[in-house]
Amino acid sequence: MLHMGLVVQKFGGTSVSDAQKIHRAARRAIRAKLDGHRVVMVVSAMGRTTDKLLSLANDVSSNPPKRELDMLLTTGEQVSIALMAMAIHDAGHEAISLTAAQLGLMTDSVHTKARIQRIERQRLERELELGRIVIVAGFQGIDQAGEITTLGRGASDTTGAALAAVLGAGACEIYTDVDGVYTADPRLVPDARKIDRISYDEMLEMASSGAGVMHSRAIEFGMRFNVPIHVRSSLTDAPGTMIMAETEGMETIAIRGVTLRENLAAVFLIGMPNQPGMVSTVFSEIAGHNIIVDDIIQNIYDSGRKANVGFVIDAEDAPVTKEVAERLAKEQGYEGVEIHESVSKVSAVGVGMRSHSGVAAKMFDALSGAKINIYTISTSEIVISCVVSREDGPRALAAMHEAFELAKSNGGGSEG
Amino acid sequence: MLHMGLVVQKFGGTSVSDAQKIHRAARRAIRAKLDGHRVVMVVSAMGRTTDKLLSLANDVSSNPPKRELDMLLTTGEQVSIALMAMAIHDAGHEAISLTAAQLGLMTDSVHTKARIQRIERQRLERELELGRIVIVAGFQGIDQAGEITTLGRGASDTTGAALAAVLGAGACEIYTDVDGVYTADPRLVPDARKIDRISYDEMLEMASSGAGVMHSRAIEFGMRFNVPIHVRSSLTDAPGTMIMAETEGMETIAIRGVTLRENLAAVFLIGMPNQPGMVSTVFSEIAGHNIIVDDIIQNIYDSGRKANVGFVIDAEDAPVTKEVAERLAKEQGYEGVEIHESVSKVSAVGVGMRSHSGVAAKMFDALSGAKINIYTISTSEIVISCVVSREDGPRALAAMHEAFELAKSNGGGSEG
Repeated sequence: MLHMGLVVQKFGGTSVSDAQKIHRAARRAIRAKLDGHRVVMVVSAMGRTTDKLLSLANDVSSNPPKRELDMLLTTGEQVSIALMAMAIHDAGHEAISLTAAQLGLMTDSVHTKARIQRIERQRLERELELGRIVIVAGFQGIDQAGEITTLGRGASDTTGAALAAVLGAGACEIYTDVDGVYTADPRLVPDARKIDRISYDEMLEMASSGAGVMHSRAIEFGMRFNVPIHVRSSLTDAPGTMIMAETEGMETIAIRGVTLRENLAAVFLIGMPNQPGMVSTVFSEIAGHNIIVDDIIQNIYDSGRKANVGFVIDAEDAPVTKEVAERLAKEQGYEGVEIHESVSKVSAVGVGMRSHSGVAAKMFDALSGAKINIYTISTSEIVISCVVSREDGPRALAAMHEAFELAKSNGGGSEG
Repeated sequence: MLHMGLVVQKFGGTSVSDAQKIHRAARRAIRAKLDGHRVVMVVSAMGRTTDKLLSLANDVSSNPPKRELDMLLTTGEQVSIALMAMAIHDAGHEAISLTAAQLGLMTDSVHTKARIQRIERQRLERELELGRIVIVAGFQGIDQAGEITTLGRGASDTTGAALAAVLGAGACEIYTDVDGVYTADPRLVPDARKIDRISYDEMLEMASSGAGVMHSRAIEFGMRFNVPIHVRSSLTDAPGTMIMAETEGMETIAIRGVTLRENLAAVFLIGMPNQPGMVSTVFSEIAGHNIIVDDIIQNIYDSGRKANVGFVIDAEDAPVTKEVAERLAKEQGYEGVEIHESVSKVSAVGVGMRSHSGVAAKMFDALSGAKINIYTISTSEIVISCVVSREDGPRALAAMHEAFELAKSNGGGSEG
C-alpha cells in the first residue's frame, strides 16, 4: 500500500539557500514522516547556484555545448540533496539522496530541455519501505545512453509533480518564498489577495501570461494525472494555493486573477493581400530565427481582399523581426509594417468567464476609465488579453484588479 | 591499436582554479592531440572547492553520513570536467566529459576511501575512436549498486594512474603547481634541486615521510602496472620529475632526497616487562582509538627481561595516547611513560643506500655537526629516519641536504 499517505514536498532554491533553511525544510519533511506519511522530497540548487554555474560556463566558453551545460548544472541539485540528507540524519532520522541516474528518472536526449519519459519506481519504493525520507535531485534526468539531461530552468517543480503522479501521491507540495498564487502581482497591486483554489487551466494561463510562480510543465503533469499541487510558503504553516481540477464552485467566480507581461513588442502587418500562404510565409520565416510569436490576431477588410495581422514577440527580438517583416512587405506587396517596441500585455484569467457574459466589456471599461489606449485585443476560452503601452501596464493591471473586485474575498464579487 | 600514443594528463585543483587556467590546461591537451596522441584528461575540483563543500557539510551536520559526503564532494570534479569540455570545444576541438558512472570506474563500497576494482574500457575507447579528448572526473567512483564513492583526498592522482595502467598509456602526466619533486622542501632548503628521475619505492617513502606532492596510491598503481608518472608544472613546458621503475643508473646516487614531517609526538614506554602479548596490547588499544602509529622501535635490556618501546603519532593524538599509555603502565607494570609532544621526523631516502655503506654515519655526523639532539633512529631498506625536536627540524633537514650534497646535480656527489 505504497500509495497511502505518500507526500511529495518540493523545495525551491530560496528555501534551501543556507544551512538554517535546509534544516527548516528537513524539519518539515520529518514532521510529515512523524505524522505517518511516506515522504519524498525534491530539492533545487541552493540560492543562486545555477546562475553562478552558468557564469562559470560563460567564463570558459562563448557557446557551451548543451551536453556539458547539463553536466555542469546538475551538480547544483546534487549538492542540495546531499546536504538535505545530512540535515535529516543530523536530526536523528533516516534519509537517502538520489540522483536522477540512481532513481531512474528517464528522459529523452534533448539536452537543456529534456522531457520525462519514464520514472522507475523500484529504488524509490525500496527506500520508502526502509522508512527513509527519499530526497530526489530536481531538474535533472538521464537518457537511455546514461547521458545527464536537464528539464529546463525552474523544472524542479516538474520533477515534483511527475514523482507525485507516478507514486500516486495525495498532493505535490511546492514550498517557495511566496505564500501562494495571487490575484495580481502584489508588488504592482498592493491589495492583491492570495487565491485559495485555482484550476490547472487557469494556472497554466496565468503562468503563460506573466505569473512567474510555477513551471508550466509541472502544472501539465498535475492536470494529466490529476495530482493537486499545493503552492505554499516554506516559512509558515499557512495553507497556500491549491492548483487542482476545476470544480463547480469555481465557476461562480468569473475572474481568478490578472497578469502583466512586460518587455514585449507588438508587430502589425498592414494591408496584406489576403491570399493562401501569405500568413504561413511570415510565421515560418520568423520561426526560422527561433523567435517565439504570441497572440496572433488577424482582421480582414476591403471585402476580404486585404488583411491586417498583429502579433506579439519579446522586445529583444524586435530588430530581427522588423528586418524580416519589411523585406516580406516589399516582396509580397503589403501596405506597411508597424512595430511598437515597448508594450506590455495585461490579461484576465478565469474559468468562470465561460458562463459570465460582460467580462470583456467590464475589462475594456476599466481600461477606458483609466484612460489607457488598447493596441490589440485577443480572447480565448478563459483569458482576455490586451496589449497596451509599457508605461500603462501597471496602471492597467491595477484598474482591472479593481474592476473585477479581486481584492474582495478572492474575486468573489465579480458578476458578469 | 588503442595503446599507441595514448597519454593521460591529470590536472590538480590549482591547475584548473579559474577560466584562464582551465583554458591553459585545455591547450595542453589539444597540443598533445595535435601531436598525434589520443588524450585522456583527469581533472580535480577547482581550487578550494572541496574544502568549501566540506564546510557546507559541517554547517548542516556535526557528523555527516559518508555516503552523503561522497554525493556532495563528487560534484566538484563534475563541475571541472564540464568546464574543461566547454573550454576545449571553445577552442574548436572535440571533447567529452565523463563521470565515474558514465565511464564505469568501479570501486568497492567503502565511502570516502573506496578502492578501484575495475575500469570499463568500452566507453573510453569508443570516445577516443571518435577523435575526442576524453575528460574524466578524478577522485570519484561508483560501486556495483550504483552508489557514488570517492577514493580519498588527493586521489585524482590515483584515477590518473589507474587509467594510464588500464589503457596502457606511455605515461601518466601529473600537472600541478610545482615543477617536480625536490631533493628537499624548497621553502625550507633554498638550494634544493628538482629530481629528474626517482624510483616508485623512493617516491613512496618520500611521500610517506613528508613530501606531499603525490597521492601514495597513485604511485602504487604506477609501480604495479609499470606506468611512469611524470610530475610537472602546469605553467611551463619544462620536464618535471619522472617516477619510474628503478634503473641501474639510479643506484650510483645514494640519497635521492630528504624530507621533514612535522606536528608529531614521540611516545616512549620505558621498562616494559618483555613478555609475549605486552606490545600487542598497547598497539591494539591505541588502534582502537583510530590513532595511526608510525616508526615503532624497540630495544631490550636487563638480559632481555625489559624493553623500551618508542613510536611516533600525530601531535593531535597525544592526549588520548597519553591516557591509554599511563593506564597500561599501571596495569602492566612499566617503569614509566614519556611523551614528547612537539617533535619532527627527518628522513633520507634513496635506493642507492643499499649499496653504499656509511650513509647512516654521514647523516648522524651532519646532525651532530649542527648540534641537534636525536630522539630516535629507525632505518629500513631505503630510508633512514631520525626524530628530533620540532624546533630543530628545519635545521636538521638543511644539514642533511648539505651533507649528502643534494644541491649538486641531483645528489650525484654523495658517495657512501
